[in-house]
Amino acid sequence: MENPYVLTHKVPTHKDFIDTTEFDQSEMLDLVKISTAIRDYIKSGNTLNNLYHKNLAMLFEQKSTRTRVSFEVGMEQLGGHALNLAPGAIQLGAHETIGDTAEVLSRMCDMIMARVDRHTSILELATRSTVPVINGMSDYNHPTQELGDIITIFDHLPEGKPWNQTKVVFVGDSTQVCASLMMITTKMGMNFIQYGPPAKWLNDHYLQIGRANVQQYGGSVHVTDNPIYLEGADFIYADVWYGLYDKETPKDVYMREFYPKYQVNDELLALTGNPNVKFMHCLPANRNEEVTDSVLDGPHSVAWDQAENRLTAQRGLLAYFGGVAEPIMEIIKNQKEGK
Amino acid sequence: MENPYVLTHKVPTHKDFIDTTEFDQSEMLDLVKISTAIRDYIKSGNTLNNLYHKNLAMLFEQKSTRTRVSFEVGMEQLGGHALNLAPGAIQLGAHETIGDTAEVLSRMCDMIMARVDRHTSILELATRSTVPVINGMSDYNHPTQELGDIITIFDHLPEGKPWNQTKVVFVGDSTQVCASLMMITTKMGMNFIQYGPPAKWLNDHYLQIGRANVQQYGGSVHVTDNPIYLEGADFIYADVWYGLYDKETPKDVYMREFYPKYQVNDELLALTGNPNVKFMHCLPANRNEEVTDSVLDGPHSVAWDQAENRLTAQRGLLAYFGGVAEPIMEIIKNQKEGK
Amino acid sequence: MENPYVLTHKVPTHKDFIDTTEFDQSEMLDLVKISTAIRDYIKSGNTLNNLYHKNLAMLFEQKSTRTRVSFEVGMEQLGGHALNLAPGAIQLGAHETIGDTAEVLSRMCDMIMARVDRHTSILELATRSTVPVINGMSDYNHPTQELGDIITIFDHLPEGKPWNQTKVVFVGDSTQVCASLMMITTKMGMNFIQYGPPAKWLNDHYLQIGRANVQQYGGSVHVTDNPIYLEGADFIYADVWYGLYDKETPKDVYMREFYPKYQVNDELLALTGNPNVKFMHCLPANRNEEVTDSVLDGPHSVAWDQAENRLTAQRGLLAYFGGVAEPIMEIIKNQKEGK
Repeated sequence: MENPYVLTHKVPTHKDFIDTTEFDQSEMLDLVKISTAIRDYIKSGNTLNNLYHKNLAMLFEQKSTRTRVSFEVGMEQLGGHALNLAPGAIQLGAHETIGDTAEVLSRMCDMIMARVDRHTSILELATRSTVPVINGMSDYNHPTQELGDIITIFDHLPEGKPWNQTKVVFVGDSTQVCASLMMITTKMGMNFIQYGPPAKWLNDHYLQIGRANVQQYGGSVHVTDNPIYLEGADFIYADVWYGLYDKETPKDVYMREFYPKYQVNDELLALTGNPNVKFMHCLPANRNEEVTDSVLDGPHSVAWDQAENRLTAQRGLLAYFGGVAEPIMEIIKNQKEGK
Repeated sequence: MENPYVLTHKVPTHKDFIDTTEFDQSEMLDLVKISTAIRDYIKSGNTLNNLYHKNLAMLFEQKSTRTRVSFEVGMEQLGGHALNLAPGAIQLGAHETIGDTAEVLSRMCDMIMARVDRHTSILELATRSTVPVINGMSDYNHPTQELGDIITIFDHLPEGKPWNQTKVVFVGDSTQVCASLMMITTKMGMNFIQYGPPAKWLNDHYLQIGRANVQQYGGSVHVTDNPIYLEGADFIYADVWYGLYDKETPKDVYMREFYPKYQVNDELLALTGNPNVKFMHCLPANRNEEVTDSVLDGPHSVAWDQAENRLTAQRGLLAYFGGVAEPIMEIIKNQKEGK
Repeated sequence: MENPYVLTHKVPTHKDFIDTTEFDQSEMLDLVKISTAIRDYIKSGNTLNNLYHKNLAMLFEQKSTRTRVSFEVGMEQLGGHALNLAPGAIQLGAHETIGDTAEVLSRMCDMIMARVDRHTSILELATRSTVPVINGMSDYNHPTQELGDIITIFDHLPEGKPWNQTKVVFVGDSTQVCASLMMITTKMGMNFIQYGPPAKWLNDHYLQIGRANVQQYGGSVHVTDNPIYLEGADFIYADVWYGLYDKETPKDVYMREFYPKYQVNDELLALTGNPNVKFMHCLPANRNEEVTDSVLDGPHSVAWDQAENRLTAQRGLLAYFGGVAEPIMEIIKNQKEGK
């Protein structure tokens, strides 16, 4: 990334941000550039208002903390406004199809972000909406988490190693966050491992995407229950074991499947042989289930930086899909160059 | 409307917007002027901030999509802010009377918009509030819908016909939207028909209002189950058949009452004999009950323009009752005249 | 308060506003100065934007009207934005500890305000948060109410009496509002009485705080069921009798305990012998239980001014703990002096 303020893609190749598989590596790197440039600019005490009088409709079919707060603050910090359409607060589902809601929101708002129960809903939203739609997590994937996570990985790259040789190990269940992490790390040509019980490995559909990425960008993708694969990991990543909110697994069932082998604790970190290994978690965490307090609160943890990078990513996405990435990069570049 | 930027009423004749029956035709036409002037100005890329630092409390006793989003975006686009006081989120009902809540909100906010279960609640709110109160729908009427609908009718007037000869046919149940459409069309001197089963005709209270309007402004008002009255319609309007949210009619009951005779489908549109007839719906729609997909998504439908005009209307109402209509019209006029 | 724009404390002595016991009289007086200076400045038609692009996370474990609306409007009027994280809308409690939520919110927002079920929660929030935390009421105390109430008392001081000789009588149950009123009035060196049934008197923990204040600042603190103590009251204050929301007392039980002796009605006001006695209530009120309509809506009532002063207080708190009190006081002073 030699020219930090020069984008390969001046405008998005797709109206919507639904699935990173639709975007190539250079466009994802553009998003990293935009996001981190805005972050650094704001952290230095500057302000931006390029989304002034723009309104983002945030549609939630499920509870959310990080996605909700990061999008709402992100819009505000770019001068705009976000509307929180909480579960049960609007007609959606009750008396209106998601498609009709999409068409109505398109007539009043400038962008839509939605967290949905089913991936088909976000696809229907995008089809009917005439304004950009951002996928704030479905049962299939979590692309805004992908962008935040890859930014966090770039922030904490192992010293002296080319970034595309980074090794990232996801420990546990093949949640949509696991699948998403696999999709973005392989897109970057990194080495991705899912370490978990065979019954909980990423399915073939996801692995095909990973293998296609490997073919195009290098790197590797593996699923395994063999702890030997932890060796040399630069990043260990955990997510909860209870599955999706609307069909949660009972605790005794998931504990039998994952505990104690797949708990990220000090012993598991030691298996990496890497004294500088970083620990990531998308949060919320079920403390002392998938991760111990000692790891989550310990020196290896970058989980809170990672949470902050949800905001970093959202601002970048809002700028890019909101059509103001170019002028913002110009403002930042001019300031850097003292103009 | 020869002088598009000159208002008959510089300030509202009433503090609150509860019932259009309290306002005469000239004041409703002022609201149409203000609303469409602001719409066109913003659509041309201009911004307004006349409600900067003004706060609208939005009080909901029921779910809402269009009313909620249009008021929140409307405030934002005029530089202000709207607070979403969702069902169950505040003390209202639980531990405080609506009157006491009104008095408290008056001390902190600049305007109140409320969607209430019972019309008596909006009246109590307006009595106790010292700031303007806007009725965002009650079981009696839906005046902000009226303004949006009449703007949509003006947007799609039949060519070559004087606007007060327009014929508007509401098909189906005498919902508060049906009553509201009758009140605003007769106030404009248009011809209004409700076409539905006799048990579901508008009651005498409403019809008296319509007849008084006819006497004052011309036009006509009829309720009928005879399809001959569809002939020559310029607008066909539908609403759901299940009644009010908190006392919904079971599906088998309402289907027996309305289906298939009162479903707006291609055959029913053909009965108008008007190849340019427009279809309107306040939404949400129960697709393939009161209206078929072919009509709602077809070339006659202006239902999505109509949804957008909810925002058009709210901005006009917020400007007028918020006391900034005159300065806004001045800004717009000056820009048009190149000053 | 001879120098209304000169603060004793330029910056807060504590990061958080959890308990007024941590702040001395001079710092509470600073907060009164800041709050009333901002109020008068805004009421005169001026605007402030010192919290532009600052975001306040509002975390609610319980319903709220006054606290919610006053903080949201307060942020808006200082140029910032408040996020409403309503009960059940975020992961809190469901899948995340309050500490983890605090740490995440600290990474995205500039301040946190929380209304919590248990005081331990606000303490945990403050410990884990790196940004200022404001206590929007717990089961222990209600410090933002304290600031609003003391401002209201200053607004309506008895004429010709030194302010530290004011006599304030709380009538009824030892709610957290009763305790809070005792803490702030004794901190100001005033005379505080709780008049209620012995089983409902403030406990020793609270009374110790009051007695320590009396020792430091003068005044007095008493709990009594003897109506003779009403004599000479300058302020009579009431709160509901049903206790905390999540463990409400049944109506027949609390009526037996408090009614009719502790109802604030015209007869009780007459017992003060003070024709200018003021009536205060934190609201919401259970009309004709703890207070009659004739008192709440009568000439002695300052309950609605008091509600408005919730907003007055919140702006002061947001400015002070948000780190912009000094520049705001400078702006206001300069304008007063015509600079």
